Amino acid sequence: MEYTIQVQPGAHMDFENHACDCIGTGRMDLALQEEYQEELRQVQRLCHFRHIRGHGLFSDGMAIYAPVTDADGIRHDQYCFTYLDRVMDSYRKLGLTPVLELGFMPSQMASGNQTLFYWKANVTPPAEEKRWTALIEATLEHLCERYGRKEVALWPVEVWNEPNLPGFWENADKQAYFRLYEISVQAVRRVVPGIRVGGPAICGGTGSLEWVRDFLACCRERKLPVDFLTRHTYMGQKPERKGRYLYHEMCRPDDLIDEVRATRSVMEEFEEYRRLPIYITEFNTSYNPFCPIHDTCRNAVILCSLLSKLGDVADSYSYWTFGDVFEEQGVPATLFHGGFGLMAASCIPKPSLWAFHFFANLEGECVHRDSRSLILHREDGSYEMILWHPDEEVQETEIIRIELPWENQATVLSRRIDETHGNPLKVWLDMGQPRNLREEELGFLKNAACPETVSQCMTAQDGRITLEFTLKKNSFCHIRLMKHAGLQETGYLPDMYL
Amino acid sequence: MEYTIQVQPGAHMDFENHACDCIGTGRMDLALQEEYQEELRQVQRLCHFRHIRGHGLFSDGMAIYAPVTDADGIRHDQYCFTYLDRVMDSYRKLGLTPVLELGFMPSQMASGNQTLFYWKANVTPPAEEKRWTALIEATLEHLCERYGRKEVALWPVEVWNEPNLPGFWENADKQAYFRLYEISVQAVRRVVPGIRVGGPAICGGTGSLEWVRDFLACCRERKLPVDFLTRHTYMGQKPERKGRYLYHEMCRPDDLIDEVRATRSVMEEFEEYRRLPIYITEFNTSYNPFCPIHDTCRNAVILCSLLSKLGDVADSYSYWTFGDVFEEQGVPATLFHGGFGLMAASCIPKPSLWAFHFFANLEGECVHRDSRSLILHREDGSYEMILWHPDEEVQETEIIRIELPWENQATVLSRRIDETHGNPLKVWLDMGQPRNLREEELGFLKNAACPETVSQCMTAQDGRITLEFTLKKNSFCHIRLMKHAGLQETGYLPDMYL
Amino acid sequence: MEYTIQVQPGAHMDFENHACDCIGTGRMDLALQEEYQEELRQVQRLCHFRHIRGHGLFSDGMAIYAPVTDADGIRHDQYCFTYLDRVMDSYRKLGLTPVLELGFMPSQMASGNQTLFYWKANVTPPAEEKRWTALIEATLEHLCERYGRKEVALWPVEVWNEPNLPGFWENADKQAYFRLYEISVQAVRRVVPGIRVGGPAICGGTGSLEWVRDFLACCRERKLPVDFLTRHTYMGQKPERKGRYLYHEMCRPDDLIDEVRATRSVMEEFEEYRRLPIYITEFNTSYNPFCPIHDTCRNAVILCSLLSKLGDVADSYSYWTFGDVFEEQGVPATLFHGGFGLMAASCIPKPSLWAFHFFANLEGECVHRDSRSLILHREDGSYEMILWHPDEEVQETEIIRIELPWENQATVLSRRIDETHGNPLKVWLDMGQPRNLREEELGFLKNAACPETVSQCMTAQDGRITLEFTLKKNSFCHIRLMKHAGLQETGYLPDMYL
Amino acid sequence: MEYTIQVQPGAHMDFENHACDCIGTGRMDLALQEEYQEELRQVQRLCHFRHIRGHGLFSDGMAIYAPVTDADGIRHDQYCFTYLDRVMDSYRKLGLTPVLELGFMPSQMASGNQTLFYWKANVTPPAEEKRWTALIEATLEHLCERYGRKEVALWPVEVWNEPNLPGFWENADKQAYFRLYEISVQAVRRVVPGIRVGGPAICGGTGSLEWVRDFLACCRERKLPVDFLTRHTYMGQKPERKGRYLYHEMCRPDDLIDEVRATRSVMEEFEEYRRLPIYITEFNTSYNPFCPIHDTCRNAVILCSLLSKLGDVADSYSYWTFGDVFEEQGVPATLFHGGFGLMAASCIPKPSLWAFHFFANLEGECVHRDSRSLILHREDGSYEMILWHPDEEVQETEIIRIELPWENQATVLSRRIDETHGNPLKVWLDMGQPRNLREEELGFLKNAACPETVSQCMTAQDGRITLEFTLKKNSFCHIRLMKHAGLQETGYLPDMYL
Repeated sequence: MEYTIQVQPGAHMDFENHACDCIGTGRMDLALQEEYQEELRQVQRLCHFRHIRGHGLFSDGMAIYAPVTDADGIRHDQYCFTYLDRVMDSYRKLGLTPVLELGFMPSQMASGNQTLFYWKANVTPPAEEKRWTALIEATLEHLCERYGRKEVALWPVEVWNEPNLPGFWENADKQAYFRLYEISVQAVRRVVPGIRVGGPAICGGTGSLEWVRDFLACCRERKLPVDFLTRHTYMGQKPERKGRYLYHEMCRPDDLIDEVRATRSVMEEFEEYRRLPIYITEFNTSYNPFCPIHDTCRNAVILCSLLSKLGDVADSYSYWTFGDVFEEQGVPATLFHGGFGLMAASCIPKPSLWAFHFFANLEGECVHRDSRSLILHREDGSYEMILWHPDEEVQETEIIRIELPWENQATVLSRRIDETHGNPLKVWLDMGQPRNLREEELGFLKNAACPETVSQCMTAQDGRITLEFTLKKNSFCHIRLMKHAGLQETGYLPDMYL
Repeated sequence: MEYTIQVQPGAHMDFENHACDCIGTGRMDLALQEEYQEELRQVQRLCHFRHIRGHGLFSDGMAIYAPVTDADGIRHDQYCFTYLDRVMDSYRKLGLTPVLELGFMPSQMASGNQTLFYWKANVTPPAEEKRWTALIEATLEHLCERYGRKEVALWPVEVWNEPNLPGFWENADKQAYFRLYEISVQAVRRVVPGIRVGGPAICGGTGSLEWVRDFLACCRERKLPVDFLTRHTYMGQKPERKGRYLYHEMCRPDDLIDEVRATRSVMEEFEEYRRLPIYITEFNTSYNPFCPIHDTCRNAVILCSLLSKLGDVADSYSYWTFGDVFEEQGVPATLFHGGFGLMAASCIPKPSLWAFHFFANLEGECVHRDSRSLILHREDGSYEMILWHPDEEVQETEIIRIELPWENQATVLSRRIDETHGNPLKVWLDMGQPRNLREEELGFLKNAACPETVSQCMTAQDGRITLEFTLKKNSFCHIRLMKHAGLQETGYLPDMYL
Repeated sequence: MEYTIQVQPGAHMDFENHACDCIGTGRMDLALQEEYQEELRQVQRLCHFRHIRGHGLFSDGMAIYAPVTDADGIRHDQYCFTYLDRVMDSYRKLGLTPVLELGFMPSQMASGNQTLFYWKANVTPPAEEKRWTALIEATLEHLCERYGRKEVALWPVEVWNEPNLPGFWENADKQAYFRLYEISVQAVRRVVPGIRVGGPAICGGTGSLEWVRDFLACCRERKLPVDFLTRHTYMGQKPERKGRYLYHEMCRPDDLIDEVRATRSVMEEFEEYRRLPIYITEFNTSYNPFCPIHDTCRNAVILCSLLSKLGDVADSYSYWTFGDVFEEQGVPATLFHGGFGLMAASCIPKPSLWAFHFFANLEGECVHRDSRSLILHREDGSYEMILWHPDEEVQETEIIRIELPWENQATVLSRRIDETHGNPLKVWLDMGQPRNLREEELGFLKNAACPETVSQCMTAQDGRITLEFTLKKNSFCHIRLMKHAGLQETGYLPDMYL
Repeated sequence: MEYTIQVQPGAHMDFENHACDCIGTGRMDLALQEEYQEELRQVQRLCHFRHIRGHGLFSDGMAIYAPVTDADGIRHDQYCFTYLDRVMDSYRKLGLTPVLELGFMPSQMASGNQTLFYWKANVTPPAEEKRWTALIEATLEHLCERYGRKEVALWPVEVWNEPNLPGFWENADKQAYFRLYEISVQAVRRVVPGIRVGGPAICGGTGSLEWVRDFLACCRERKLPVDFLTRHTYMGQKPERKGRYLYHEMCRPDDLIDEVRATRSVMEEFEEYRRLPIYITEFNTSYNPFCPIHDTCRNAVILCSLLSKLGDVADSYSYWTFGDVFEEQGVPATLFHGGFGLMAASCIPKPSLWAFHFFANLEGECVHRDSRSLILHREDGSYEMILWHPDEEVQETEIIRIELPWENQATVLSRRIDETHGNPLKVWLDMGQPRNLREEELGFLKNAACPETVSQCMTAQDGRITLEFTLKKNSFCHIRLMKHAGLQETGYLPDMYL
């Protein structure tokens, strides 16, 4: 099928881009690992995320709560910030500041034994509220001491994670969560008065809108601070298991957008919360870390759709997660395994990393946006475009023609990811899924993970240039149309040797 | 045109591979530079060269000869090994040991003022022989002290560079060179008895065979040690200049091979030197650092031809040079400029780097070799192949079919370099030859410099597998046919999402 | 008190130095951490250990045992070597190979729930022996595949850790341990025939000799392979707790040596095991990771005593542990806290690191050794000495005089650690034990951790040189007496400016 | 002799600190070297300089002027910014921006052959003025394009170097310099309108004030821009040579200050230039790179005097130079050789580096300043002090007593450099000036280069604390008096083991 886009001089379309605002990470203490840091360095080099959000700030792995029991058997609360400092220092070195998710429960402070994940996060309320608030206060106070109160005041604070799931919060007890929210944000604000706080960090599904409504009603009634509303959104529908792996139909990107809009509708029922920002503190296709879609080009194409639209409905959206150093369902035994990461182990980019790279570095004003394309006009007169083969399309192959206002000569640079370019998964599968990768094989995979990069020199006709691209299913590309430098070393003519 | 290769079980063909024995470098003090070291690190990661050879050990830039004149006006010879140690330490850290080329003349020790190159190498004989031999002895003695006599004894020593050119050696004075050789190798051997020495380091052209004959006759007559014979060989014929740049027709790879064979013929005239190793201490297509061919795919394809044959006639062959940090005709002002390097500045691989990478990492026994292909059989049963579109062919596009003995499933991995893959030159030209490259543009060029990497899963039929490749002009590829790992995580089926 | 040592020409004394053979580490998955690797790099730069041994190879943190349960509820054993490879790769990059300690029990494979440590090591026997031996075989097989069978055959294998303590092995059940040993070493040997295996890895205390005797008797009876005998030895006597910290009287270094001798005596009861090597797979002063002695100069002085003698009785001895990244009793909240490490967090050397550095780099033949000094004569004619103020001495200050055969001029270089030099603990205490260290303060501590380094130029008299050193309590030093280079740049006289 | 300083609460004294404003460097293309960059990294870690200034921007080593001559023999001016970009990029990565010194003359543009230094800087006027101004304009234009016009506008521009010396500027021709200044600053301002320019970059000596006067008169008359006045100042008096080395009496620090004051007096003769900033673009003790004083403690002590006073008379002062990678009189053959550097090769700090480190990191308000001490009061209530043994003092040993307002407990941290601490020169001399340093010896020297760091815990009496320090000749120290953290882990009592 063919498809033509005509951009007129002075064109403008709305496009709100928060692609690099925030990124997700597995439990916070994984940030102590060298492989994690190496991957995050690479991701930051390509995407420049500003915030990072992960679970487990108060879980045993971070070892913050460290009580001592004296000779008389009395427990004295003490805190250990060794790992917290190490993690925060490492983030700041990479230009990242945290979204502080308050949770889960230190096992020595918990009211129950229910745990979640391979790493055994305790998901029960505190046995004694005052120990929990003291923990929050001590932690915030320490962060202020180390990084400055002004700086910490810029870090958003979210209370707990997905309390509307009984696996994540004992019995999914709504009132207990509201109480947790109440005492937590009050503690936070006592230490850092101006800091922004939010919740309820719910995931989607039946009842999620009810949670939002009740949460806001509770905040209004109890006069609790709430500076942004947080929720998660995933596209995976009813799952089916095969071995360790989970499969589901994905809803359409627009369904996900609609889910966020519905949340806004609920918020609009509350005069005082109509304009509250929405932070999607987690989103992805599947919510499962062993769902093979995450490794594929298709995932990246869906991301293109989402990243082009999410700014319409949300003020922040955080892809879950940047890398495959992740342990919720156990440690991955194979290079590809359906992990959430933008990057596989050994710093091998997945297709989705390029989607983020392209969106994160966009500059200029939007002159065109539709369900398969995005075109921006930079201040220096150049254009950049992202084109993708929309998931919902029937045709295997699309031809896209783009007409742009232009004078004189232009350089067109395109980088394409498709089944056979920028897709290391295919190579790894063709190799027979080897587990024991050596330098040589890693070399092949890194080469295979590189987008196909094609350049072309064109000349405008009648004040316009027309580009044509063919996109196959599950492929996408980034294109730069820029001024030809127009330099020519006298006598440098390598074509004489072709 | 189509072309079929059938490899029978147990096939064997001769193939002597010294691709990673030695590599050339610009004047030795360039090794002090950070960019040089960064490029060399990358080259070594891909090619693992063992020796490195460059000019200027005794030139002013290395600052070894550092006499002091006392109050009475008497000059006392002193030596400064600060830079020498720094350079040698850096080589050893990268797994390299030097070929010590004794030259050029320290200006304070020279008999004349003739200089060569932008960096003004003095090319005249020593004013006083004993200062020259003292310099050699002090330098060798120092190297032994720092790196151990046993270690230094393994470094080949060559006397001067291209003395058959009047630009490189005053008047191309043959007898003066023989005298220089005589006193130099005797000095070297006094300090390190077993060390291997050689010459006459001539370039090709009229009279070069005469030089070889006279040199060997002189060695025989004066009973001078000579452990290997050195010469250079380039393919560039009569040059034509355009601006800064030089163009010439290239002779055929076989002509270059024949030139070395002719040298062997001369050697065979001498009973005692019949089997002396030949070290080609420099080779390349053009001998000029501003000849555009060096940046092209065509250069790499010619290299494939040469690297597949040079082992037939020489015991070592050293590509001139690994990188573009090079100053003989001035500092290059543009990223691409026809420099000798396998790698352009900012560590951007040229096509020729991949040719070397492919040859340098070959393993196993040769089962097929012809003018456009090389096939090896590894100990683990896998195959690796290099195919190239031979320069002399008429057809634009070749189809190569390869039949190999094989059982069961196989993975085929190929990496291809052609006009639009692994060829950053094209992108830079299409950009309009920009001089002022920023991060974003360097990113494009690095992506564009990556070979196209394609994988495939195949199954043997009747004990054989047949591969088919299409090669366009100026393209080449490396192929691995290896055992399919045959692993399959139960339930990992990403194809469900395609 | 004064003390004189006279070394005669040709003197010789026995001294067996295995100081850098092996070093201990906390649980193996801590090696995934960046801080751990950074500290280990520094330690290796100074000490060049060859082996490293830690717990938890099979514990949940390494995540090797990763069974899947199918739809029918049947558990299929699978293994995940992601972390194992990462850890082993990191060790090998630093020149280390592991001592493989087989333990503890994967919780999904255990017969009971008893755990140990903050990180919850399961210390019960396997529920099913064949799953345990399959785990061992799969792991060894994988290591062989990745690192080569020849290489893995050089790694010693030890079975479990301190089974004579009920906390470390359920009920300290001796027969159960012997059975574990039996099936484990048989499994190991099935995969790697020649590999060396040993046990019983006991700690000291009542009953330990009985364990050795019974272990050897069992091996003899059941014809089990045993290539070396392993045990631990610590100096801490009955402990007293204050807050988180543990204090005890230390036995004398000689008591520790005697404890190992007693082990040898038991071995000598067995004809076939008389000459079996003894590997002390753990030693230290206190066995507790919150015993303040580890941070002190006194600890380092005791180490000097031990390292000068341990070679008399053991073939390997592994200090427990190289660094303070350690979690057995929880994560340390303060820089100094009595951790085992040679190095505190942020790579701050403790005095004990220098003791190891001095012993690990000793070269030459021993010409003197007593309870407070060690003198070696290097091949190049120089001497090196370690002097320490022995723990048992009564005098606060000792004067040591050393007479050595020497001709002409000498340079004497000494590096001293005492209360006010090379002792960052004192500075940190004087600062008031700050928890929140910033760059500036870390800078002070790093400066304070540097040994006082003093040089002197001396001239021999009558073929001898006499050195004199004053040693205060808890201090030690390393001295090099070496040939004065005897060079003098003509005219370089900086003393003119003093 | 004893000496007491009493600081009263609320005390204040003037002290202008520009210690880290600017630092000198050898010719700019040395910045291409890896060793140079490594040393600069270390220096910047300790001192955080903001600007860097060196010679040779337009000399052949930077290779900016790169004309091509066409077939008709006509020279076309072209420029090569390869090295310039590499150098500027490297500076910016370390937080440095350049002071652009316009000079020396490209040899292909020069009117004469006079050269200076081992690296042969051409010091003659341009053969054609318009080529020189075109060079300046092209260079500035390129810098603007690469780094932004706003950014480049912040870089000070100075014209030539020491034109009042005939070695540095042909015949020290004053009028020729004024003409050069005129055309140069006009060219600079054409490209970057607001940029600050200055001169005449003279060194001291007879006639220097006359140069200042004439320069300002010329600027006034010709209406030339001049935003700051630049000069150099050194303390070395009539030199005496010994071998390669130069010795001279040093004038007193106050003499140097007076020399700058005299410059100010001349400026005050001009109403419009009274308040012009003075930039001392070079200062040091000796002006010779082979004067042994630079390696000594005495040099550092003199620096303490200078750095405490230079802010009274100048707005910027740039120590000549940060490191010993320097070639003006040839490449140094030995580690220590009287080079200007704050740091010797292999990153070994000289005493003077610590003087700079101490001054560069001072914070707070000055509460005391005299000829041997400087005391600042930080915002957090702590104090920091620098004490030095003033060069002019007669007594070998001084006792300094300092009384400061204080309450409660304090930590006193002092770092001292003297003959036997922080003075690697002594160790190297005692070793016999070895040229061939190996890892082990470099290790000794690095340890020896560390300041003695001593801590103490004190308690205020009657609202005051009294510190006492003994300073020997040629020694200095930095002291921090700060709040005792007052933390004490319950039960952490390492003193029990002393």
